[in-house]
Amino acid sequence: MTLDTSRLDFAIALSKAAGARALEAFGSIDSLTIESKGHQDLVSNADKETEAFVRAEIAKAYPDDGIVGEEDAPKRGTTGWDWVIDPIDGTANFVRGIPQWCVIIAVTYKGRTEIGAINEPCSGETFSAMRGHGAFVNGKRMAVSKSVSLSDGSVGTGFSGRKNPRGIVPIIADLMDAGGIFFRNASGGLMLSYVAAGRLIGYIEEHMNSWDCLAGLLMIEEAGGRIVEPDPETVLMSGTMVLAGAPGVYDAIAEIAHRHFVK
Amino acid sequence: MTLDTSRLDFAIALSKAAGARALEAFGSIDSLTIESKGHQDLVSNADKETEAFVRAEIAKAYPDDGIVGEEDAPKRGTTGWDWVIDPIDGTANFVRGIPQWCVIIAVTYKGRTEIGAINEPCSGETFSAMRGHGAFVNGKRMAVSKSVSLSDGSVGTGFSGRKNPRGIVPIIADLMDAGGIFFRNASGGLMLSYVAAGRLIGYIEEHMNSWDCLAGLLMIEEAGGRIVEPDPETVLMSGTMVLAGAPGVYDAIAEIAHRHFVK
Repeated sequence: MTLDTSRLDFAIALSKAAGARALEAFGSIDSLTIESKGHQDLVSNADKETEAFVRAEIAKAYPDDGIVGEEDAPKRGTTGWDWVIDPIDGTANFVRGIPQWCVIIAVTYKGRTEIGAINEPCSGETFSAMRGHGAFVNGKRMAVSKSVSLSDGSVGTGFSGRKNPRGIVPIIADLMDAGGIFFRNASGGLMLSYVAAGRLIGYIEEHMNSWDCLAGLLMIEEAGGRIVEPDPETVLMSGTMVLAGAPGVYDAIAEIAHRHFVK
Repeated sequence: MTLDTSRLDFAIALSKAAGARALEAFGSIDSLTIESKGHQDLVSNADKETEAFVRAEIAKAYPDDGIVGEEDAPKRGTTGWDWVIDPIDGTANFVRGIPQWCVIIAVTYKGRTEIGAINEPCSGETFSAMRGHGAFVNGKRMAVSKSVSLSDGSVGTGFSGRKNPRGIVPIIADLMDAGGIFFRNASGGLMLSYVAAGRLIGYIEEHMNSWDCLAGLLMIEEAGGRIVEPDPETVLMSGTMVLAGAPGVYDAIAEIAHRHFVK
């Protein structure tokens, strides 16, 4: 069987094209119309326009695939393939001018992630993975951290209004009591990519939407890390708890998470 | 009296030149020699080489000024002017490949900050300020956030091994109980710049060294924010508690900080 990388290649190219468009809007940040949709979820015109662009490109190239995105209603497909997209992850950073946000594109087959592509335009990094074929940043193979102790690096964290945001506090407390350090740059997609690249040693968040986490989780698996497998039956529409780490620290991270979050 | 911007111009140019050199080393991150000097303070060859470069350039241009830097012993001057430098702020990010770090140059006169320049090479931003003459990012004037409530934005936080790092936990808890959100990208210099630029609404850290905070604090003042004034007698060598915010939220931030940190 020949390896079919067409959806991977398309996802990578599309994440870059969408990133370039969003970066243009980011440069003129003062004129963006910001509309509040809750504490954490600021939405910009750029967000909506980027999602519209990504959806249109996918619909042209893979008209029978489904599409699930942050901004618009899901489109049902007939092929088993779904494109799961977050046009701008880290919207709060984006709208405030902090250059730490990304475009996320995951592709699932029957609910299981097969492809992930994340473009971070401000510093020009593109992260990608295909199940069984490794994970890469700008074409260079990624590997998770070799850390064996929580004191060897930092653990990314996130929270949202979907759960009690305050729930992150005991996690941070336990992490620091165990000699660890937390990191939160407000882009879950970027932080998961950083775990895959060995830059963070793990990640904990009580609940993430599919479009925020699936691409990064596949990258972590393909870079040798451990994760809680999302449930293919429910993850697309209901999201998942996110727990990920380098093999040498995963158990320690999971122990902290499970003290506070339901398995 | 003619406005003398020679040290400002020099500081900006030097931060860019140093940033460009460090960026080159960042691109070949795998080959960096990393030497552990405690949990948070990883030191790279690039750090040391960048400080040596910055010191040499200052010594050539302003041979009678003093120099205080993170890596080497202070050099006493005779002019009242001191250059206070952190060659790579966010070293832990730098050595792990996270593109969020900066070069910081502050210039003090008799212990009071007069000039600040911060270069962030990965996304190409240079922040600068001169006392009485405003603060700028890439030449565009900065202004702090117009936020009037802690729920209007995010507050940067940091900690270090110099104080009990665990001390940040009750701060985060109180902040979230008050409807706020924390941000920690592990570069204090960048986060203070973001406060000046209105991207974060404030910043809290129990103790920072002078080279980490003086440039950013001046920018925040010059961008219309409020800060705890560092003590000119002690800050250069002993550092300071750091508390800063937009006018509309400063009191709320200070109240939380003072519950836990000594005034």
